[in-house]
Amino acid sequence: SQTTTPRLARFPHASHESPLAHSSQHTVLVSVEPPRAPMAVAVLLAAILALSPLPLSLASPSAAAAADRITRLPGQPPVNFSMYSGYVTVDAAAGRALFYWLVESAAAKPESAPLVLWLNGGPGCSSVGYGASEELGAFRINADGRTLSVNPYSWNKMANVLFLDAPAGVGYSYSNTSSDLLAPGDNKTAHDSYTFLVNWLERFPQYKYRDFYIAGESYGGHYVPQLSQLVYRNNKGVRKPILNFKGFMVGNAVIDDYHDFVGTFEYWWTHGLISDDTYQKLQLACEFDSSEHASEACNKIYDVAEAEEGLIDAYSIYTPTCKKTSLHRRRQIKGRRPWLPRGYDPCTEQYSTKYYNLPEVQKAFRANVTGIPYAWTSCSDVLFEYWKDSPRSMLPIYHELIAAGIRIWVFSGDADSVVPLTGTRYSIDALYLPTVTNWYPWYDEEEVAGWCQVYKGLTLVTIRGAGHEVPLHRPRQALKLFEHFLQDKPMPRPVPSIQSF
Amino acid sequence: SQTTTPRLARFPHASHESPLAHSSQHTVLVSVEPPRAPMAVAVLLAAILALSPLPLSLASPSAAAAADRITRLPGQPPVNFSMYSGYVTVDAAAGRALFYWLVESAAAKPESAPLVLWLNGGPGCSSVGYGASEELGAFRINADGRTLSVNPYSWNKMANVLFLDAPAGVGYSYSNTSSDLLAPGDNKTAHDSYTFLVNWLERFPQYKYRDFYIAGESYGGHYVPQLSQLVYRNNKGVRKPILNFKGFMVGNAVIDDYHDFVGTFEYWWTHGLISDDTYQKLQLACEFDSSEHASEACNKIYDVAEAEEGLIDAYSIYTPTCKKTSLHRRRQIKGRRPWLPRGYDPCTEQYSTKYYNLPEVQKAFRANVTGIPYAWTSCSDVLFEYWKDSPRSMLPIYHELIAAGIRIWVFSGDADSVVPLTGTRYSIDALYLPTVTNWYPWYDEEEVAGWCQVYKGLTLVTIRGAGHEVPLHRPRQALKLFEHFLQDKPMPRPVPSIQSF
Repeated sequence: SQTTTPRLARFPHASHESPLAHSSQHTVLVSVEPPRAPMAVAVLLAAILALSPLPLSLASPSAAAAADRITRLPGQPPVNFSMYSGYVTVDAAAGRALFYWLVESAAAKPESAPLVLWLNGGPGCSSVGYGASEELGAFRINADGRTLSVNPYSWNKMANVLFLDAPAGVGYSYSNTSSDLLAPGDNKTAHDSYTFLVNWLERFPQYKYRDFYIAGESYGGHYVPQLSQLVYRNNKGVRKPILNFKGFMVGNAVIDDYHDFVGTFEYWWTHGLISDDTYQKLQLACEFDSSEHASEACNKIYDVAEAEEGLIDAYSIYTPTCKKTSLHRRRQIKGRRPWLPRGYDPCTEQYSTKYYNLPEVQKAFRANVTGIPYAWTSCSDVLFEYWKDSPRSMLPIYHELIAAGIRIWVFSGDADSVVPLTGTRYSIDALYLPTVTNWYPWYDEEEVAGWCQVYKGLTLVTIRGAGHEVPLHRPRQALKLFEHFLQDKPMPRPVPSIQSF
Repeated sequence: SQTTTPRLARFPHASHESPLAHSSQHTVLVSVEPPRAPMAVAVLLAAILALSPLPLSLASPSAAAAADRITRLPGQPPVNFSMYSGYVTVDAAAGRALFYWLVESAAAKPESAPLVLWLNGGPGCSSVGYGASEELGAFRINADGRTLSVNPYSWNKMANVLFLDAPAGVGYSYSNTSSDLLAPGDNKTAHDSYTFLVNWLERFPQYKYRDFYIAGESYGGHYVPQLSQLVYRNNKGVRKPILNFKGFMVGNAVIDDYHDFVGTFEYWWTHGLISDDTYQKLQLACEFDSSEHASEACNKIYDVAEAEEGLIDAYSIYTPTCKKTSLHRRRQIKGRRPWLPRGYDPCTEQYSTKYYNLPEVQKAFRANVTGIPYAWTSCSDVLFEYWKDSPRSMLPIYHELIAAGIRIWVFSGDADSVVPLTGTRYSIDALYLPTVTNWYPWYDEEEVAGWCQVYKGLTLVTIRGAGHEVPLHRPRQALKLFEHFLQDKPMPRPVPSIQSF
């Protein structure tokens, strides 16, 4: 039950454990490095391609990349863009390989569209399972867990989107060295992700020197700035870096433990989720604590808060929850809740858990080629449990990258109680940035879609009524946000035709 | 535009000005007392009825009441309960008369069901226009403004509900003495409402000694306890009072200016509606100010807050607003928002403004028999503008009535930014009542419907996702709340079948 769930499970998705997850998922087992074309052959093929009339920087991938091309996913509707997936080794000795899924741009000129890396959080959750499957990816997985629908608000309308499952142990990513999975942490994740990027660019040289962005959500609020810092520092002094890093964007992001805690507890109280008493006790027991490694006292009062909160979806406090009941029952709920069929389906996570465990799906993705002996799960409880280093604040990285002129956008769905807007506001405030444009409502289809504040060096955007996974709850508004981020243009003010109601 | 609306217009519905409202509504004009059966005749008829085999306490009304019976309202579907409406004089010399609409209980035994008086706020807004027409009344007015639908969650399922438009100048209620309308206030409203009740009971003697409750919302947070106090005090020492007063209930209620302000500003900031800067300035300029008669400095920063908030529905911050556009345009919006047809229609206020101005509707209600020379409006700007006495706090009345053992329930839709939950929580906290049952979620159809805290002498209930007009936004949950209030039973905890999602 929720009341006995450890506090940390409140962080993205660890509490959404799927009923399909293999019961032995806590057993860490080795798997074997997948067969791959020897590098010499790849280099030879690349050399041959280099002699062809088509320049490498255009759509033609390397031979290794060509081998990663997805012909068609099971249940997939036809699309007019290419997709690639597969493993990139980040540590050959350890047998550590990360799984990626590249969804190329459907824009008019994909060869000039930027490359965007998307990272989900957890820690331990899959970017394929969340970002690609229920947020900004090209498809949504249908309730049958076997077929896909086109997501009309997919972010590949404007960019080439690269979903990465990191660190090893997340999704299809794996390690042959058990200790890798028992000592995961922020630092390793950042360095493995960086190695992935460099190696991946060798396979996809057409993306070298391309405008490159990093985006993500939730505990990705750690991954994204940490990887950004690494890219930025490694690029320093390089005249024309292959990772042509322009900026990062995080949503409902863990930023700074102290300010996140203060804001979270205030959010809970002001949204009526907890008692006065629990609010006071949380402030006393947790506020100066570590978010990833909290004290016993803090965890205890966190449990009380969860019990008071009740069986709501903490990630989206005003929407219906997914009931662990039959499809028939769900259909009944849909009948009474006519917005569900077109809107957000709270059971979507169950569909991805089914889909990514289908053998034909794994074959089409060239995933799990080594036969990982545990089921695919959207989040790894092992990684979550054994997570090591987790700095209390990302604010020093913000300062460093703002000073460097890196574009930084922070967004927040305001109906999320897990990493809520108030925490984000307090964290940003703690940067003491000068304001360029003060808080104002931004509009989409004549409705207030959220609010925006432009600081010197950082833009903050909220999405009204959206939960933790903004592109899931507000897909059209999220795509608009992405567009403005890429263009570095503040969110739109109302058009003159709008009248007061 | 919203930015130039005075701050006080933020209080219930004054900003929802209807396009149908007569432009000369600011001109206060006299009207003539409607013809009415002389009291002697009524007494005679009552005496005759008393000799009949049916006891007076059953459904048979007095002759005067019989004259008030509504045969059928235009566009009304058939129903199995009786309705009455008309004027009750509260000051014959001044020619001051209040309009009421009684919807009798559809329960199995209406003759033993309690009597509940419902009061909307403003000040200056109509209980007929809001409570009866879009909240807890027997009907909802259709988009054509000419026909009615049955409200399946009408509160007359459990009680005889009496809607009163008070003070004179509200809705169909009027005064022949202009100064009445230019000097309205809390005290007059309470006393006129009390006089109304006493006189009304002469016309409906079957409701004498019946269990009696007073309920209302918003600025009704002033009316309800003030009238309750008057009833309680006048009953004191009376062995068997005709107003058998049991308790009161208020929703999204103005309770205590200081705590309401503190909570309102915190609500705005924590829900992302305003900037940090404006939040600080509101605290400085307004917190020790009067809510009904605020200072220039407070009004000024209030305007800034409204501009930052943008064109959202302040009374329901997550729902679409009503666009002042054609029905065709609204249908388009409905098409894209499939929950609207079954859920809440943000344009509902426009339908009542049309309906209550139809001559055939006024005839059926026996309203406006004197030909009031201004159009019916849901709220009176004149009363709002000229409102006199408005005590800063209702808390002393709470203390008095709690000590007297009067049942008090306070509820709050948590998506209302006008009289928000946080203000209500701070106000209740300021009573320093001992807790009987701490904050817990209450359930409806396996979803968390809100939260509940039982104090010694007062029960606080929230309704999740509901705006300012709780029975409009969450009709089923509101009916459940009403049922539990009447039974004085805390809101239900989860049934054992519920599982975590």
